[in-house]
Amino acid sequence: MNYSIVFYIIGWVLNIEAALLLLPGLTALIYRERSGFAFLITILLCLCIGIPLVLRRPANRVFYLREGFVCTSLSWLVLSCMGALPFWISGCIPHPIDALFETVSGFTTTGASILPRVEALPHCMLFWRSFTHWIGGMGVLVFLLILLPMSGGSHMNLMKAESPGPSVSRLMPKVRATARVLYLIYIFLTAALVLLLVLGGMPLFDSLAHAFGTAGTGGFGVRSDSIAGYSTYLQVVITVFMILFGINFNAYFFLLTRKFRQALELEEVRAWLAVILAAVLIISINVLPYFDSFLQALQQAAFQVASIITTTGFATADFNQWPQLSRTILVILMFIGACAGSTGGGIKMSRLVILVKSVAKELQLTLHPRSVKKIQIDGRPVEHEVIRSTNVFLVVYILVFTFSLLLISLDDLDLVTNFTAVAATLNNIGPGLELVGPTGNFTVFSPFSKLVLIFDMLAGRLELFPLLLLFSKNTWKKF
Amino acid sequence: MNYSIVFYIIGWVLNIEAALLLLPGLTALIYRERSGFAFLITILLCLCIGIPLVLRRPANRVFYLREGFVCTSLSWLVLSCMGALPFWISGCIPHPIDALFETVSGFTTTGASILPRVEALPHCMLFWRSFTHWIGGMGVLVFLLILLPMSGGSHMNLMKAESPGPSVSRLMPKVRATARVLYLIYIFLTAALVLLLVLGGMPLFDSLAHAFGTAGTGGFGVRSDSIAGYSTYLQVVITVFMILFGINFNAYFFLLTRKFRQALELEEVRAWLAVILAAVLIISINVLPYFDSFLQALQQAAFQVASIITTTGFATADFNQWPQLSRTILVILMFIGACAGSTGGGIKMSRLVILVKSVAKELQLTLHPRSVKKIQIDGRPVEHEVIRSTNVFLVVYILVFTFSLLLISLDDLDLVTNFTAVAATLNNIGPGLELVGPTGNFTVFSPFSKLVLIFDMLAGRLELFPLLLLFSKNTWKKF
Repeated sequence: MNYSIVFYIIGWVLNIEAALLLLPGLTALIYRERSGFAFLITILLCLCIGIPLVLRRPANRVFYLREGFVCTSLSWLVLSCMGALPFWISGCIPHPIDALFETVSGFTTTGASILPRVEALPHCMLFWRSFTHWIGGMGVLVFLLILLPMSGGSHMNLMKAESPGPSVSRLMPKVRATARVLYLIYIFLTAALVLLLVLGGMPLFDSLAHAFGTAGTGGFGVRSDSIAGYSTYLQVVITVFMILFGINFNAYFFLLTRKFRQALELEEVRAWLAVILAAVLIISINVLPYFDSFLQALQQAAFQVASIITTTGFATADFNQWPQLSRTILVILMFIGACAGSTGGGIKMSRLVILVKSVAKELQLTLHPRSVKKIQIDGRPVEHEVIRSTNVFLVVYILVFTFSLLLISLDDLDLVTNFTAVAATLNNIGPGLELVGPTGNFTVFSPFSKLVLIFDMLAGRLELFPLLLLFSKNTWKKF
Repeated sequence: MNYSIVFYIIGWVLNIEAALLLLPGLTALIYRERSGFAFLITILLCLCIGIPLVLRRPANRVFYLREGFVCTSLSWLVLSCMGALPFWISGCIPHPIDALFETVSGFTTTGASILPRVEALPHCMLFWRSFTHWIGGMGVLVFLLILLPMSGGSHMNLMKAESPGPSVSRLMPKVRATARVLYLIYIFLTAALVLLLVLGGMPLFDSLAHAFGTAGTGGFGVRSDSIAGYSTYLQVVITVFMILFGINFNAYFFLLTRKFRQALELEEVRAWLAVILAAVLIISINVLPYFDSFLQALQQAAFQVASIITTTGFATADFNQWPQLSRTILVILMFIGACAGSTGGGIKMSRLVILVKSVAKELQLTLHPRSVKKIQIDGRPVEHEVIRSTNVFLVVYILVFTFSLLLISLDDLDLVTNFTAVAATLNNIGPGLELVGPTGNFTVFSPFSKLVLIFDMLAGRLELFPLLLLFSKNTWKKF
């Protein structure tokens, strides 16, 4: 383990966090809120640790996948702990574990909350809560790659560890350029959303908060009833943008570079949109008796489907009350998740495409034992390593899920609450069913269970492996 | 597809079924029950179709894995349809889908019932119900291999398709000898169990029925309260034998051939027993307040754990009322299942061992990208094909589970009932939680859902692939 570079990167992460904390600080100034001092204290603390770490330039610049994984998980832990301080210092969230839960839920773009009434929070805290979604959506290390000129090509490993999906395709020959393009698309789409929301009559503050939540596929809002109180136009705009942020950003890159055919032919995106369409249609018909017209049912079904499959977690209706078929479909969508290379969570559509194709190949092999066929996606063969790590991902995913379910069952809540609580955190969605449904929240759990769910949120956002490696003795060996 | 040999084997299966039906027929004679005529009619029907099919000897003896899979799934379908006739003809189960459900539940050793009161059935029907467990436990095609002298070594494929687990090890050089040894162990253990039950004061008829249910890891009893009404001695005997029948039969073979060290070193068996021990201890402590003494809690926990993990499904306590931790552990055990090469269902311990080892290997590879290490079990490297098919099994398992859950959710029952109903049928266990818990039964489902669950029971017993291949167009091509 190359410790010097790990500390160097964590130092940078802290400094960036200090810079990012200026925004909620500014919000406090605008709204003249006393709790703004909490941000000032946190900024100073970040800089006190961050600057000394950055000054000691690492002697050894060797940076393998192992360093990438460790940097990523440690950065996210540090980011979350420091980010939780304003909530705790200001007394807005008195219990430190609750403050950490809320912050991790923010950065991991989960959107699961322990707050019964968000309206009680001052503006600066609401802003920070939503802003963490935006930061966590694209990733702070990806942002770091734009700023930090690192020598050697091996810092691709940093991006690999933080970006969701089975494989990161370099859009540009240089990692730095790729990271910059991704952030430009991200900023442009967010700005477009803010504009459309403001034009639809949503106050600027609400528009910013919801745009951050939508862009990061997070789900924190500024009202207890989430998006239910806003107009149909605003709900439709958010529905469309949730789906846009759930699409593989490669598609936008292809569009930008005028490779329209390649953009339209992305198998993952097509399969994902097909799943959304099917789910929306079935649920619309299923919940028809609950609404006045088919159009209204369609709009509500589309919102909920988009919110769950992109793992955003906004709510406009209490789908916990819907018929079992719709509830079951939503639970299944929780696991599917968004596309790889988007800001969404879940297992990711590209993994499912790979897994389903591997089943088809196995059936083929049973019938014709001598056939040699590689699995292809978008016309290109999928490497054996990618298939293997996808399979391993699935196994680890099931193991983490099972152990989490077991640990939180100590609280003796019902099975559906427990099951969907783990599903909602591990897949970075937000709400589940029953006690953690759209109208409930995560205060029902004990501090121990909250720690388990905090682990799940981080494991889900970082796609399991970086966090698991922290527990391996071999990771910490010097080389 | 070599159709002639498929028909030939199905013919034999029907003739064997006719012979097996003589036993419940005899029971009817002993107890002078009129419904015995239903068996007579079924026997004649089996022979009418079976004998002509057997007389036409197949011209082509070529027998690939494909033929093995098709023979197996068709045989099980034919076996179940004919086996359901006595229930339906006699009027004991008036609805044909119910009769099929009960029979498939029997042959697949599931033990899920649609009967609210089994005491209402005549003895011959109770006998047949339990006897189907015994037949299905070791498999009728494995039995066929003993009788039928087939040329060529390729009928190993028949055994591969019917025997549970990722890989079938030939205990003896010849398939026929292997099949014979397996059946001899099976008969010996069953006889020992009957003896111990009779010595403990259980009536002979009950002893036979429960021995069949235990040996096949089925779960049909002769009383509505399952095993709860019997003495502690009898419950303990059944607990021990459930575990014995859930162990890989290779262990017994090693013991028979005095390879004691090899028997004791089987990794799968050791891991499996460790899981049982851990589960029993945790549940005992968790349910302590429900019982008078720790010993009683221990005995009840051990019975339920053994019953669920071996996928037998007998019950002595209503574990649906137990605390959430115990309920969750039992649900997890449902998925683990028994050892490969036993009569139990579920995912199988050996698959889990392979999957967990593949995770460890991947972690190792992340830290040391150039390390080359093969996964080993019992000191021997595991073939790449076995790992691949284990991964594919997991994916197909999840897909079948998800679609089943979706289809039966149309009945609008609660999620826990649906989830555990699919888990209990796909893993061939029997009872689930809530409406299908130990005191409930499967009558709550619509005929359509029952068909879905019938599919799941067959898919679970035949380990998915044989049944899936029936739906592939390529399977039916002539070569």
